[in-house]
Amino acid sequence: MTSDEFRRWGKALVDWIADYREGIEDRPVLSQVEPGEVRRRLPPEPPETGEGFDAVLADLDEIVLPGITHWQHPSFFAYFPSNASYPSVLGELASAGLGVQGMLWATSPAATELETHVMDWLVSALDLPAGFRSGSAGGGVIQDTASSAALCALVAARERAWEAHSKGGRLTAYASTQAHSSIEKAVRIAGLGADSLRLIEVDEGYRMRPRALAAAMAADRSAGLVPAFVCATVGTTSSLAVDPVAGIGALCREQGGPSPVWLHVDAAMAGTAALCPEHRWIHAGLEHADSYCFNPHKWMFTAFDCDAFWVRDRAALVRSLSVLPEYLRNEATESGKVIDYRDWQVPLGRRFRALKLWFVLRAYGLEGLRLRVRRHVELAEAFASWVEADERFELAVPRSLNLVCFRLRGSDEENEALLARLNASGALYLTHTRLGGRYTLRLSIGQTDTEERHVRAAWERIRAEAESV
Amino acid sequence: MTSDEFRRWGKALVDWIADYREGIEDRPVLSQVEPGEVRRRLPPEPPETGEGFDAVLADLDEIVLPGITHWQHPSFFAYFPSNASYPSVLGELASAGLGVQGMLWATSPAATELETHVMDWLVSALDLPAGFRSGSAGGGVIQDTASSAALCALVAARERAWEAHSKGGRLTAYASTQAHSSIEKAVRIAGLGADSLRLIEVDEGYRMRPRALAAAMAADRSAGLVPAFVCATVGTTSSLAVDPVAGIGALCREQGGPSPVWLHVDAAMAGTAALCPEHRWIHAGLEHADSYCFNPHKWMFTAFDCDAFWVRDRAALVRSLSVLPEYLRNEATESGKVIDYRDWQVPLGRRFRALKLWFVLRAYGLEGLRLRVRRHVELAEAFASWVEADERFELAVPRSLNLVCFRLRGSDEENEALLARLNASGALYLTHTRLGGRYTLRLSIGQTDTEERHVRAAWERIRAEAESV
Repeated sequence: MTSDEFRRWGKALVDWIADYREGIEDRPVLSQVEPGEVRRRLPPEPPETGEGFDAVLADLDEIVLPGITHWQHPSFFAYFPSNASYPSVLGELASAGLGVQGMLWATSPAATELETHVMDWLVSALDLPAGFRSGSAGGGVIQDTASSAALCALVAARERAWEAHSKGGRLTAYASTQAHSSIEKAVRIAGLGADSLRLIEVDEGYRMRPRALAAAMAADRSAGLVPAFVCATVGTTSSLAVDPVAGIGALCREQGGPSPVWLHVDAAMAGTAALCPEHRWIHAGLEHADSYCFNPHKWMFTAFDCDAFWVRDRAALVRSLSVLPEYLRNEATESGKVIDYRDWQVPLGRRFRALKLWFVLRAYGLEGLRLRVRRHVELAEAFASWVEADERFELAVPRSLNLVCFRLRGSDEENEALLARLNASGALYLTHTRLGGRYTLRLSIGQTDTEERHVRAAWERIRAEAESV
Repeated sequence: MTSDEFRRWGKALVDWIADYREGIEDRPVLSQVEPGEVRRRLPPEPPETGEGFDAVLADLDEIVLPGITHWQHPSFFAYFPSNASYPSVLGELASAGLGVQGMLWATSPAATELETHVMDWLVSALDLPAGFRSGSAGGGVIQDTASSAALCALVAARERAWEAHSKGGRLTAYASTQAHSSIEKAVRIAGLGADSLRLIEVDEGYRMRPRALAAAMAADRSAGLVPAFVCATVGTTSSLAVDPVAGIGALCREQGGPSPVWLHVDAAMAGTAALCPEHRWIHAGLEHADSYCFNPHKWMFTAFDCDAFWVRDRAALVRSLSVLPEYLRNEATESGKVIDYRDWQVPLGRRFRALKLWFVLRAYGLEGLRLRVRRHVELAEAFASWVEADERFELAVPRSLNLVCFRLRGSDEENEALLARLNASGALYLTHTRLGGRYTLRLSIGQTDTEERHVRAAWERIRAEAESV
């Protein structure tokens, strides 16, 4: 492909994307294809000779689009949002166009420095603890996901515990029963063994009980084990419950034996709310955290992947992940004046992901971001009030931020049937969870373009389908 | 940003990228900025109100570009290439534009099925073992990097060893002294402890000695340890040495005790060569491998990140990484008819990375890819012959594929000074390694647009600077 062809097809693809986004409401949110349907339309073997891009573009329409579940659809209320706003799409394009590796400062200084800079910007924007700033002993880095952030935090926690205990003693980790599955995955990958993870009970609001945590740590310590890692969740996946970070943090400090227990705070979804001063209560106690993450790729309109991860002691993280072979040695690294982000993550190579975050922050401004976050919270508030006003339905828990957990007053089977009918309609997409053992529908409002009419239409559809269940 | 603004600025950015690529040869390959120089030009706080994209575009030129080390420059001969060809840039743009999550089949069937499909295409294209095809017990998945692939392989290997040994016994891992640093990093992350990794000695061609491996495994077994994982390298980072996979594979099968030792083959850079039948010898013995990876994002012109990773027993991988919380349950998963790639990797979320691979394979065709690979190998052959014909220089090892390791006949300091002068010139970018304890320059020829004139100019510059050392 020549530069001229790239100009031509690049512009055609920009138009294709804009056309797709403009027409997205005409498509069923959840893809309707059967397993194998997409593959059956593809040639069994790769092409021997090159093809024109017109053929590729046509196949995007014919083969790919029917197999897409439209995460950018304003009636996507499933899981949590994964927003790819226009400015962030441009960020991905610029990053791919430059095609640089940010593994070392030297391999593209701008990739490292812009990342450090926007991570400091986010400390300001969310009013996070000053100890996360790059000018302190801490600092921030972009990870692909909160799963990888949790793994890095756990690995650093393990290193610190080993240092304090001369590698003796079996380590244990703690999170609530509502913590994300990535915590168990991290514990398994890090080789602590899934049986080293204690799932701590929660209160009626699905928040971790600090007293239960204290008891579990004390029991483990009595048994000769070494409590090393606690993950508190700010905004659980099932119901956006906010663990009491301040109380948990105090326990981690007090009960840590020779070294404090590492406190990681996972605010993957909810963290974005702290753009708004009225929601900053979610981060109360965050000054106790050794590490923290939230995902701009969820509710901050930045194309996946973009998890913002901070540590209070970057030396602890780097010690646990740094391996320096000869072929990566260079003058800038030896000078100690630069950050080499390869030592802050699992992979060696890294994309220039700071660009999309920079583009989003500049295109929206903090005001623009807050406006959308507030709109989503207001819409969730309205939806929750409609649920409460209809006697056929009930809230499973009080609304939290932009998430409403509700159900038909009826059996699990009826609720499951309702969800299936709604999703099959193509008009909207919801997912479920279990709260208190009961099947519960979740309505998560966070897509960039979701407006009142989409939420209202969703409610009308839910009421109508409930008639048929 | 409205759709119309996206159309306008998207097209402007496409032109900006084409202009950048067309003018890239006028730029110094290695960025000349000092630490902190990029950050000093950025406002200390994030903008309160949104800005127009014209300002962002201007800053790409003024602030970002001076801080870029140009990996897409045809005179980039450092490390290994990280190619982002035009078709793959379009793939990234399409992926960001669609903005879907491929964590489950249901969350966008096309993302999963196209990925499975192009991974099968690559099995054909590289003539890999049939046991890697999705129709067998194995299968392929796109990881971000070979580092993550190695970590996943190691975690699956550990699970298999634990199952066979009822979780008893300390596990050990093996790789040559020349293996990539990511193997040690994976061993540390997985919590085996860096002292569980045995670095096996190499022969005069920097290839792992199978007899030394056999001895190390036997010694560990005698000491009551459990050999669980071997990484063979096809194309080492320092010199593209190819470990004898067949011999190593036989050892893994024979010496495994109750279960065979897991053999992972890391062909991150060199794997692409197998597009060409004359280079397929590099994969001799690959049928013994439990897992294998190579990086289309290196030499196969596909924008980072794109590591192609296969396993022969996908159940082993999934068992080690699958955690299924209620909120991810869905009908398609329960049916057992679909692949959920979240269970094949560390993160939960995943981008639609198959698109860029599909675009590249279709735009170039296998013929077009082979043409470029052969051109790079021929250029390396030519460069090696020039080195050999100049009595001031010597080859550190015979050329391997597209990599030439050479040095001035002189001290390490002189070679280091030569490298520093070359890179400061901006005309080209080389990096170094140590072979046989001696400082060695590496010329890696693999950038999409590198032609004979670039390699010839590099040689002229090297000769000229050598005069001054």
